[in-house]
Amino acid sequence: MSDAAEVSAQQQEVEARLVDTVVASFDACEDPRLKQVMVSLVKHLHGFIRDVRLTEEEWGAAIEFLTKAGHITDDVRQEFILLSDTLGASMQTININNEAYADATEATVFGPFFVEDSPAIELGGDMAFGAPGEPCWVSGTVTSTDGKPLAGARIEVWEADEDGLYDVQYDAGKRAARAHLFSDADGAYRFWGLTPTPYPIPDDGPVGKILTAVGRSPLRASHLHFMVTAPECRTLVTHIFPEGDPIGWKDTVFGVKESLIKRFEQQPAGTPTPDGRVIEGTWSKVVFDIVLAPGDA
Amino acid sequence: MSDAAEVSAQQQEVEARLVDTVVASFDACEDPRLKQVMVSLVKHLHGFIRDVRLTEEEWGAAIEFLTKAGHITDDVRQEFILLSDTLGASMQTININNEAYADATEATVFGPFFVEDSPAIELGGDMAFGAPGEPCWVSGTVTSTDGKPLAGARIEVWEADEDGLYDVQYDAGKRAARAHLFSDADGAYRFWGLTPTPYPIPDDGPVGKILTAVGRSPLRASHLHFMVTAPECRTLVTHIFPEGDPIGWKDTVFGVKESLIKRFEQQPAGTPTPDGRVIEGTWSKVVFDIVLAPGDA
Repeated sequence: MSDAAEVSAQQQEVEARLVDTVVASFDACEDPRLKQVMVSLVKHLHGFIRDVRLTEEEWGAAIEFLTKAGHITDDVRQEFILLSDTLGASMQTININNEAYADATEATVFGPFFVEDSPAIELGGDMAFGAPGEPCWVSGTVTSTDGKPLAGARIEVWEADEDGLYDVQYDAGKRAARAHLFSDADGAYRFWGLTPTPYPIPDDGPVGKILTAVGRSPLRASHLHFMVTAPECRTLVTHIFPEGDPIGWKDTVFGVKESLIKRFEQQPAGTPTPDGRVIEGTWSKVVFDIVLAPGDA
Repeated sequence: MSDAAEVSAQQQEVEARLVDTVVASFDACEDPRLKQVMVSLVKHLHGFIRDVRLTEEEWGAAIEFLTKAGHITDDVRQEFILLSDTLGASMQTININNEAYADATEATVFGPFFVEDSPAIELGGDMAFGAPGEPCWVSGTVTSTDGKPLAGARIEVWEADEDGLYDVQYDAGKRAARAHLFSDADGAYRFWGLTPTPYPIPDDGPVGKILTAVGRSPLRASHLHFMVTAPECRTLVTHIFPEGDPIGWKDTVFGVKESLIKRFEQQPAGTPTPDGRVIEGTWSKVVFDIVLAPGDA
């Protein structure tokens, strides 16, 4: 990958001396963690520039890319998160901060569509709030890694509708296909959501242009988001993914993990529902048992 | 620097597998150069995240930093170039694309203050156009690396005034302390400019915040910009720096090179000027002989 072998010793010396000078410019930094992060950033950034022998034109294209990404970003569109997601940087950060712990449920990317003020629903309630899609009965338990049921765990759920859009993409104030509920005394929970479907990340901006240029699809694997919090437990941010999804492992943000693939069983039209709800067409059901690692909520 | 030694083999395996997956996502890229750049970027980006064990909070701070940098950037303020400059990335790119060639004059950073439509001046003319500062008589020759004088070379010059500001920082349409001229039949040139003084890069944005946090000064070494073009020559973008400058090697964008430090000789008030110009106070003079490498203009 590196062209360094073709570079003269004199030139390599010039380049290495600059790296040393930039690293030394952080000598007076009084925050050891900040210093460590900046020094590592400088070393890797210069390593990249030197490895690819970045041209001045490519440098200019990078500046222009960042500028455009900044200008398209606003309260509901976050191009830098899309960039981080599509380079796997978000998922790597999740990996590092959510190491495997016993049989605790694995984490995946947070994504840019969580909002703080989701509506509350009762156990068995419908989080769709009219969003279009096939109804899906989601149920399971929340337990700790020592098997104890966790009562009153807060479960935030959110997802795209069957047209591939989140509520906030229609209107910043809209709330649909999004809710929070609490586990019962036995740690159990259940609600109506929507069977997840694949959708593209917003690809009309600079990140979408890169994906096109490199021949990558902007599609995310179908998924349903969860964020689960309980006292003395590590907060879990994750998704579940339907088995047999057409995108699956080709997920453009690299969020899929084997343990998070679940069987969504489709039910023929007319099949009675667990709570007597009358549904015109098909519906599906899935079981997702959640295990939380110990930690700070 | 790396904390990797503390990370379990199982965890390292998870992280390395993700890097492989992201790298493989560029397999279908039909542009080999773009593929090389993206794969190297991914490897170095993940290397950085893994080396520092980036926290989710730090990841969030990075997203916020990039967002703010994007929002402060407009037609006359370019925060991403400041970021690149202060991390030495601009200077490294210049190094890579302007390798030493015989005794050709060395290049340095372009900076964000060049504009295309500078006014023309005659040989011996004044490029200050009223900008405040001590007058400085700049003269020299333009030759090729085989010693041949280059007649008609285009010389663009620009600099900050004594208050540390470029014309475009007052008003996007203002033109002062900026001009272009052409070398004469002997390759010689001469003009009146201003004795350069140190000034801070714009430090009221996110890049300035980082510099403050790490204990770095936002000051640039005093300098006068040149861009010199001639047929069949490599375009030269450079500065000259006054000997004995208080900032000098502490230049916040790492632009100083030994060969670009020149003696600016201060002349007492009343010293006759080379062209009979009457000056009330002191003035200075500097000689800068420019040697262009062969190449495409």
